[in-house]
Amino acid sequence: MNEPRKTPAARLSRREALLFEAGIKLGGVFHQYLGMPVSPRTATVLARAVEAAVGLQPFVRSVRVRVDPGRGGPLGRGRFAYRYLTAEMLEVTVELVDGPVAVEARLTHRGDLRFPLMSVVRVGPPKGPRRRRRSR
Amino acid sequence: MNEPRKTPAARLSRREALLFEAGIKLGGVFHQYLGMPVSPRTATVLARAVEAAVGLQPFVRSVRVRVDPGRGGPLGRGRFAYRYLTAEMLEVTVELVDGPVAVEARLTHRGDLRFPLMSVVRVGPPKGPRRRRRSR
Amino acid sequence: MNEPRKTPAARLSRREALLFEAGIKLGGVFHQYLGMPVSPRTATVLARAVEAAVGLQPFVRSVRVRVDPGRGGPLGRGRFAYRYLTAEMLEVTVELVDGPVAVEARLTHRGDLRFPLMSVVRVGPPKGPRRRRRSR
Amino acid sequence: MNEPRKTPAARLSRREALLFEAGIKLGGVFHQYLGMPVSPRTATVLARAVEAAVGLQPFVRSVRVRVDPGRGGPLGRGRFAYRYLTAEMLEVTVELVDGPVAVEARLTHRGDLRFPLMSVVRVGPPKGPRRRRRSR
Repeated sequence: MNEPRKTPAARLSRREALLFEAGIKLGGVFHQYLGMPVSPRTATVLARAVEAAVGLQPFVRSVRVRVDPGRGGPLGRGRFAYRYLTAEMLEVTVELVDGPVAVEARLTHRGDLRFPLMSVVRVGPPKGPRRRRRSR
Repeated sequence: MNEPRKTPAARLSRREALLFEAGIKLGGVFHQYLGMPVSPRTATVLARAVEAAVGLQPFVRSVRVRVDPGRGGPLGRGRFAYRYLTAEMLEVTVELVDGPVAVEARLTHRGDLRFPLMSVVRVGPPKGPRRRRRSR
Repeated sequence: MNEPRKTPAARLSRREALLFEAGIKLGGVFHQYLGMPVSPRTATVLARAVEAAVGLQPFVRSVRVRVDPGRGGPLGRGRFAYRYLTAEMLEVTVELVDGPVAVEARLTHRGDLRFPLMSVVRVGPPKGPRRRRRSR
Repeated sequence: MNEPRKTPAARLSRREALLFEAGIKLGGVFHQYLGMPVSPRTATVLARAVEAAVGLQPFVRSVRVRVDPGRGGPLGRGRFAYRYLTAEMLEVTVELVDGPVAVEARLTHRGDLRFPLMSVVRVGPPKGPRRRRRSR
């Protein structure tokens, strides 16, 4: 990074910096979308929109979002027969790449912990051939 | 509504109840999506996802969302060359219908007021033939 | 309103305009705060912050927010022993006043409907003596 | 962690795991609060509520939030004379500690980059004596 800096910066390896960036992505997804109205019919367009948004962020090579409204428990009736996005419905896997280093991280709801767990599932070389960074 | 009620309810006309509901939709949109990463390439999928979400809510007959990332000012460079959704970029028009009454309301950013203005643009009969409520 | 208008505006009575505004407030609260980390120890400061925010909005005379983390089900263990705000925990009552007209509206989670219900609980004259609008 | 795992987990050092966790906190703050109504009068209670929320999250030893509504440009007039939280107004510094390792990270808006920059400002031993984890 050649930008002028007003804040001090710790020296991090690529691997370390990617881990920080991976956390930013998952923390952001969790706190951005909860509460969105969602139904089985709209779950896919919502998942694609979240993927498109995360895909814009620095170092993101790929992102896969799954929204499963069925995990929200039984539906209400009549005009209340839709849901809003809750943590239980959301699963996100993101791969970040910087040169030879890749970090894959995941947000998934753990019923046993009653918690949306964010974890790093893999650190290592990028999977498959280097794809061109999508133009924006 | 035949649901049991734990809270008292004011008696409202259909027109009045729709005005309340229209406010819910616009207030919700404004407070749900600000901060989402967005670019000219992803603006459309984001707008469609917001439309799908709002379209699930009670009484909504139609909704049109426009996201214009260009209103966010000049872009940064390099890996900062994308934006996150700000109020300036967002324009939403929603039509709610209950029987013979329609309310059309709009969220638009008013540069002269430096404010995201939500207003009711029309109250009257529904436009065009009654469409079937989309199944969910 | 004497502001220049780029969008058309429906003619609404004060009562009608307040109903629209009441919807904006409740819709906004619901979609802004879900996902915030919260515990019994922090529930009060969170509720006060939401009240302060809503209290800034046009026409709001008073607002009362209750956050009850206990409605979120049993806690996880160890470092997962906190919760994030869900719709079940949130109850908001807001009173809007414009001259002689007051609207009181409420967001509360209805277990029987499995739904966060927003409703107008009262329309009529303001309660008690007119308080001075808080200066900002 | 002795919890059963359904997802694979990469082996990370404490330092690495803290960097991931630090990203989660900053990404979450950025995407949770944008859009909240705020004024100079309410900036402090908002900042305290964000601090209380972040302080609940795993590994957080301290957090300092500054909300400066003045960075939002000139105010509107009359009932539009308040603002909603934008990225420009927000500065967050968080320290995470796990045993002998501390990570300090910061979110600050960089006018020159037109970007809310999240960065790691320090990795090393914790500052000062180990405080007891606040009970919840």
